[in-house]
Amino acid sequence: MEEKGEKVVSSAQLANKCMVNAAQVRKDLAYFGEFGIRGVGYYVKDLLSDIKRILGLNKEWKMALIGVGNLGSALLSYKDFLKQNYKIVAAFDIDPPKVIGRVSEKLGKPVEILHINRIKEVAKERKLEIALITTPPSEAQGVANLLVDAEIRGILNFAPVQITVPDGFMVKDVFFTTLLDNLAYLLSNQ
Amino acid sequence: MEEKGEKVVSSAQLANKCMVNAAQVRKDLAYFGEFGIRGVGYYVKDLLSDIKRILGLNKEWKMALIGVGNLGSALLSYKDFLKQNYKIVAAFDIDPPKVIGRVSEKLGKPVEILHINRIKEVAKERKLEIALITTPPSEAQGVANLLVDAEIRGILNFAPVQITVPDGFMVKDVFFTTLLDNLAYLLSNQ
Repeated sequence: MEEKGEKVVSSAQLANKCMVNAAQVRKDLAYFGEFGIRGVGYYVKDLLSDIKRILGLNKEWKMALIGVGNLGSALLSYKDFLKQNYKIVAAFDIDPPKVIGRVSEKLGKPVEILHINRIKEVAKERKLEIALITTPPSEAQGVANLLVDAEIRGILNFAPVQITVPDGFMVKDVFFTTLLDNLAYLLSNQ
Repeated sequence: MEEKGEKVVSSAQLANKCMVNAAQVRKDLAYFGEFGIRGVGYYVKDLLSDIKRILGLNKEWKMALIGVGNLGSALLSYKDFLKQNYKIVAAFDIDPPKVIGRVSEKLGKPVEILHINRIKEVAKERKLEIALITTPPSEAQGVANLLVDAEIRGILNFAPVQITVPDGFMVKDVFFTTLLDNLAYLLSNQ
């Protein structure tokens, strides 16, 4: 809406776009403070900036990607990360050819692929805060342990296996096949 | 466990692997029938086959992939789909060079990229039941409408936008950036 030059948005319009109800929108936003103006709605620009601040998106998050296989390579050039202030600033692998040669050219600046044994040093140097795990499942927990040691506190795990981390570290899983299992179950029981 | 030749598993062992408690494992399985043997546990082979049947995984699910960009190409050669009996048997795009030339060679048999205007015909021919949407967000709803028209009832949506489908159709979303937003929020408020 900001890109389109729209100045004001009502909770009903927001609700419609998010497919929830307007009361819920007002209630959720009210939880974080007073943003709206009764009878008017919300100023688009201000609301966007407030939401970014609430979500911690008013800064650039520096990310590492571990495991430059098929999926990892795709994510290295996934443009939607950048749009949202997430930036992959280092990629790691254990496989020598990848480590020596491969870079992602689709982002403005190529991302160099480093050997995983440099993660702790690079994490400190480049202030890495989030890591994407795109290794085979057998390697995921080992990588998670290295991330903990490197004090990278946020993990987005694409390897289809549960990993555990100590308190103060956070893991979110992206398991495609689990979602496919949900669909298969629902389709089978229709 | 089956691959390792293990014959029997207890609810405690299953619980440990799934990081839930044993009572929950027994309760969840009991919901679908009587599988366990008191004092013994479950026969691995039988339980696996029962779970596959329950989940609708005792068959091959034929999938379409729509949008052969970066992410779409990666998913075309994502091996974990195949392991679980999900098979991409057709890929679609609207961009002529992709439509003419490109195939995924990493699966045993290459997947031909077809023009999206053939989806209805091909869905019927190849009995497509699930589709992965990997288009830009602006195209996702339009593609979803074509899938509905082609009677493909299960959709795994990777395009970061909400799509709507009629009753009887199902959408599961894979939104990386939303999960990153969760992490960013948690890391900001630690």
